[in-house]
Amino acid sequence: MGRVTQRRKVHKYLLDGSPKALEFPVRHREDVLAVEEPLEIRLGRMSFSVTMRTPGDDFDLVAGFLVSEGVIWSADQLVSLRFCAGEDENGMQTFNVVEAQLRPDVPLPDTGRNVYTSSSCGICGTDSIDSVRKSSHYSPQDDPVTMDAHVLASLPALLRESQRVFEETGGVHAAGLFRINDDGGAQLLCLREDVGRHNAVDKVVGWALREGLLPLRGTVLQVSGRASFELVQKAALAGIPVLSAVSAPSSLAVELAEASGLTLAGFSRGTSLNVYAGDARVLRPVAEVPAS
Amino acid sequence: MGRVTQRRKVHKYLLDGSPKALEFPVRHREDVLAVEEPLEIRLGRMSFSVTMRTPGDDFDLVAGFLVSEGVIWSADQLVSLRFCAGEDENGMQTFNVVEAQLRPDVPLPDTGRNVYTSSSCGICGTDSIDSVRKSSHYSPQDDPVTMDAHVLASLPALLRESQRVFEETGGVHAAGLFRINDDGGAQLLCLREDVGRHNAVDKVVGWALREGLLPLRGTVLQVSGRASFELVQKAALAGIPVLSAVSAPSSLAVELAEASGLTLAGFSRGTSLNVYAGDARVLRPVAEVPAS
Repeated sequence: MGRVTQRRKVHKYLLDGSPKALEFPVRHREDVLAVEEPLEIRLGRMSFSVTMRTPGDDFDLVAGFLVSEGVIWSADQLVSLRFCAGEDENGMQTFNVVEAQLRPDVPLPDTGRNVYTSSSCGICGTDSIDSVRKSSHYSPQDDPVTMDAHVLASLPALLRESQRVFEETGGVHAAGLFRINDDGGAQLLCLREDVGRHNAVDKVVGWALREGLLPLRGTVLQVSGRASFELVQKAALAGIPVLSAVSAPSSLAVELAEASGLTLAGFSRGTSLNVYAGDARVLRPVAEVPAS
Repeated sequence: MGRVTQRRKVHKYLLDGSPKALEFPVRHREDVLAVEEPLEIRLGRMSFSVTMRTPGDDFDLVAGFLVSEGVIWSADQLVSLRFCAGEDENGMQTFNVVEAQLRPDVPLPDTGRNVYTSSSCGICGTDSIDSVRKSSHYSPQDDPVTMDAHVLASLPALLRESQRVFEETGGVHAAGLFRINDDGGAQLLCLREDVGRHNAVDKVVGWALREGLLPLRGTVLQVSGRASFELVQKAALAGIPVLSAVSAPSSLAVELAEASGLTLAGFSRGTSLNVYAGDARVLRPVAEVPAS
């Protein structure tokens, strides 16, 4: 796996559960860790952002990050991506700086944060949701895709089966993009793993952008952890109609999903599933059993 | 809990595991979600950062964030914190902007990211570690605290017992600060929960700063998730000698812990515990059983 995982010495204390025990084994062995390194993203020669990520699929990460930030939304806006020459203390190329060249008509984002603000202090969840809705070039709310609840609930298991780095390290998040086929089944299009779950999603979205697949109509994005505002935002900006998480969503994630017309599922665990927004896309049984 | 949790309608699909089943119950009920809202942090009238967080303990969050960013490191550098008047569309105060007033001699951080860079592209893990080591005003490496491995491995259970929001929502991270007493036991000093694990740590560190407790010698920071570079950095800047995580550390987290003289434990699960750095602080049995 190269730079994706790293072997490190670890002292494993095997306690027996009793605080009285004076003897217990301490094993000295090597453990496989997920690699985390900084990546600097540049727009031309301008430093745009630094993110901590697991190396690998860095061009996808940068492309997806630019989609998530609302800078670009189609492949032809991205002219080129290249690693910027950089060396560590041993003279090795670090591959930790990527320079993106945008089409000249793409406006550069205003990233100046260090500014004196006006007296209006109106930041709130509503403002955040409005700004996402304004900046999205796609309309996931118009996507008529539907799917069987069993198919949706089966995606976490499909994701886990394909997660190689997690198997080794137990320390990474995954994002998987599935297409709902005409027969109702789900087909894995792209899986990415990263120490940061937002990076895993950016890598999937960037892959899709570079493949010319945006907007991602008829797809489901399955993530391994929780569903935050940020992940719903990334899905909305890529035109993904359904986001499904293994754990809980936050309040603002649900609000943004409702406002953007996304379906948001959580606690997806094979035999049960919670749908927090856009439940019309998740097919119910012919004879619905009433709530008890 | 006020704005910390929120009730939302949810459709719960109770599948029986068989994809052939045409009937299954769909329950319509209310679920309790962890609230996520943006917080804008200002230094005087300058906008410094916006973070998505669970409301509550916002002054602690801002104070801890300023410690984690290396801006301040003692309580007297922070003159005041106040909510900036702001209203949502219904005319309600949003409490989503906090203004920090620093002592006049504290240099304002350089947050301008939108700058043209020089031709040196030397960003790498080593650079990141160096910048943390340079910016820390404390020396956790000199802290002689030691603890029994059983005590260290018991902290996740103690943390979980005190986690109120997680019980309700299943959707938040926790950070708990424990002091190792003279008798070797661990005493919980401060517990904070948040949708973001970095926020939970910032809230704990900010609480300690405002209580005049920095540097946090003789303490353990127990976190609910994984150990990233960022969390080790926050611990180092607050002078915390031991960071323990329930899940895996990343490679750069281990490197920074080694370089900063921190003890880093992971996969802490009651009956076993991995120590990745600074194992001299974790006491071993009198008769060590060799590795098998």
